[in-house]
Amino acid sequence: MSVTRTVEVVYPEHLNHQGTLFGGEALRMMDTAAFVAATRHARRTMVTVAVERVDYEAPVHHGEIVEIDASVAATGRTSVTVDVEMHAETLLSGERRRCGRGRFVFVALDEDGRPTPVG
Amino acid sequence: MSVTRTVEVVYPEHLNHQGTLFGGEALRMMDTAAFVAATRHARRTMVTVAVERVDYEAPVHHGEIVEIDASVAATGRTSVTVDVEMHAETLLSGERRRCGRGRFVFVALDEDGRPTPVG
Amino acid sequence: MSVTRTVEVVYPEHLNHQGTLFGGEALRMMDTAAFVAATRHARRTMVTVAVERVDYEAPVHHGEIVEIDASVAATGRTSVTVDVEMHAETLLSGERRRCGRGRFVFVALDEDGRPTPVG
Amino acid sequence: MSVTRTVEVVYPEHLNHQGTLFGGEALRMMDTAAFVAATRHARRTMVTVAVERVDYEAPVHHGEIVEIDASVAATGRTSVTVDVEMHAETLLSGERRRCGRGRFVFVALDEDGRPTPVG
Amino acid sequence: MSVTRTVEVVYPEHLNHQGTLFGGEALRMMDTAAFVAATRHARRTMVTVAVERVDYEAPVHHGEIVEIDASVAATGRTSVTVDVEMHAETLLSGERRRCGRGRFVFVALDEDGRPTPVG
Amino acid sequence: MSVTRTVEVVYPEHLNHQGTLFGGEALRMMDTAAFVAATRHARRTMVTVAVERVDYEAPVHHGEIVEIDASVAATGRTSVTVDVEMHAETLLSGERRRCGRGRFVFVALDEDGRPTPVG
Repeated sequence: MSVTRTVEVVYPEHLNHQGTLFGGEALRMMDTAAFVAATRHARRTMVTVAVERVDYEAPVHHGEIVEIDASVAATGRTSVTVDVEMHAETLLSGERRRCGRGRFVFVALDEDGRPTPVG
Repeated sequence: MSVTRTVEVVYPEHLNHQGTLFGGEALRMMDTAAFVAATRHARRTMVTVAVERVDYEAPVHHGEIVEIDASVAATGRTSVTVDVEMHAETLLSGERRRCGRGRFVFVALDEDGRPTPVG
Repeated sequence: MSVTRTVEVVYPEHLNHQGTLFGGEALRMMDTAAFVAATRHARRTMVTVAVERVDYEAPVHHGEIVEIDASVAATGRTSVTVDVEMHAETLLSGERRRCGRGRFVFVALDEDGRPTPVG
Repeated sequence: MSVTRTVEVVYPEHLNHQGTLFGGEALRMMDTAAFVAATRHARRTMVTVAVERVDYEAPVHHGEIVEIDASVAATGRTSVTVDVEMHAETLLSGERRRCGRGRFVFVALDEDGRPTPVG
Repeated sequence: MSVTRTVEVVYPEHLNHQGTLFGGEALRMMDTAAFVAATRHARRTMVTVAVERVDYEAPVHHGEIVEIDASVAATGRTSVTVDVEMHAETLLSGERRRCGRGRFVFVALDEDGRPTPVG
Repeated sequence: MSVTRTVEVVYPEHLNHQGTLFGGEALRMMDTAAFVAATRHARRTMVTVAVERVDYEAPVHHGEIVEIDASVAATGRTSVTVDVEMHAETLLSGERRRCGRGRFVFVALDEDGRPTPVG
């Protein structure tokens, strides 16, 4: 199963008041990676219809690298479900730990914006 | 029960390739409103620990107003669960429809970053 | 008189070198709330034609919530004048104080971009 | 009298629904140029205390260059007043027209955040 | 040789007036990927000291995926040179073509901000 | 030879982990100024085709003003080469030093997106 991987560096603009990655920003990063994975799988116009669940397991700190891996978990008639894992990597030590994971559901649309088969 | 309401105008930078509000951007808006509602309830330092579920019910178009209402749904020993509803409003007609809803869970942290009671 | 209220959290990207909310960013937030209030009143395409006056009364600090209330103050033949108040709220104590206020003027445009009556 | 000039290109992220420069974005650009002019004049820590007046005289379109000129208009005991003019320049023809102007007031702060003389 | 790969979706905010990816935005994406590759190689604090050359070979269009691959090309006493390739991928067909490439040089800094060996 | 000058204030969102201006952000600022200079010279639709070289000579710190000067260095049949210099100015002292310079190449495009003479 192919994996779409993306990497971002955590800058001050992504931080909350504890100096860790803001939850809304992490969601935006995960959704983007999941969107690319779903689109590559179906080669259709995809839109997010649901987030089944997202868990944050550890905080991500300023100056760390965030690596997001998205892979297709299931395919319905017109939908694609994608699992996402987020790891943080400390720049100087290279130490790497899982920080979160989630499941996103996309639906394929035809040119009139109606659901269309992905198979 | 008090509600935290916020309003945003959908600009080109928020759009996906179908010309509708990008899912990741909607998540970021919902998370922010939910964060404010949880913080006002607990008056503690709160961080997102989970998104239980988000459903997108209708697309939001360029130039529409997005109104997000967040209200506390439940309180645990150290956590606050917040329900969020998103409505879109057409600028010229004022027509308003629900576009999505979600449930976010926050945990309260003390000064050392450990969970602390919210009661 | 209805009020359009919006809420934003002050993040590092909004700060000036004193660690307080940058004036240009506060103006952008006020203009957006005023635009929504004017549009809801007139249900026309509105554009800002003037800022009559803005006063900053107290600094807003990192991590505070900014609440902006916009309400229609006057209506001309083709224009709508909106008053805006900005309050800051400290996250942990809930203490709230007024930080600024302003008056914005919008004009209604028809499909050819010419001023059109709002009544 | 020295003038602080800055140039920006109008991108899609700066546009309102009429495809012209969003008023809040124009305010942010003007405030930044005025801040630099006030700081260069006083060589103190400056913060915006008021916008005396801003007028938009013509719309700015996508793909145009915006040129902003800020110059000190008056100096009080602890304050500096700056006039700002905004011109738009069409990329292909070079045609240039004034689109707006405003007056911003800044106050100088000492290390404790209290007003301090600028002379 | 390990490769750092990152993926971005081209949104309206990244476009120039021809509707293609703005050169400055492409540079920002390449620099970020190169920074991660250099840091992973040296596990030091790295800063960009030079861009040796960047060539744009084909335009990237709205709605395409941009994939950036960065790999270490050479290591000096205190510097790391990174080669970057940028490919665009059409969402619906999966067609992929090279759009640009560049070479970036980073230097390792010690805690006082002085160049330090990377070996 | 006319010079296009632009000014930006360095905010937290532009910083890397050393608290200095992020290289990718500096590239974006230089590319924008160079684009304006090339367009004003040729009055054609210009796109970046290459960055010949960029050198960073000194770090830029939070709260400093960045001034970027772009001037046309050479003109080919369908291309314009622009030299860019970046200076940093300390807000309180006015001390000014060169921080970087670069050379950017643009090509003029006709309405079909093909290279067209600039003379």
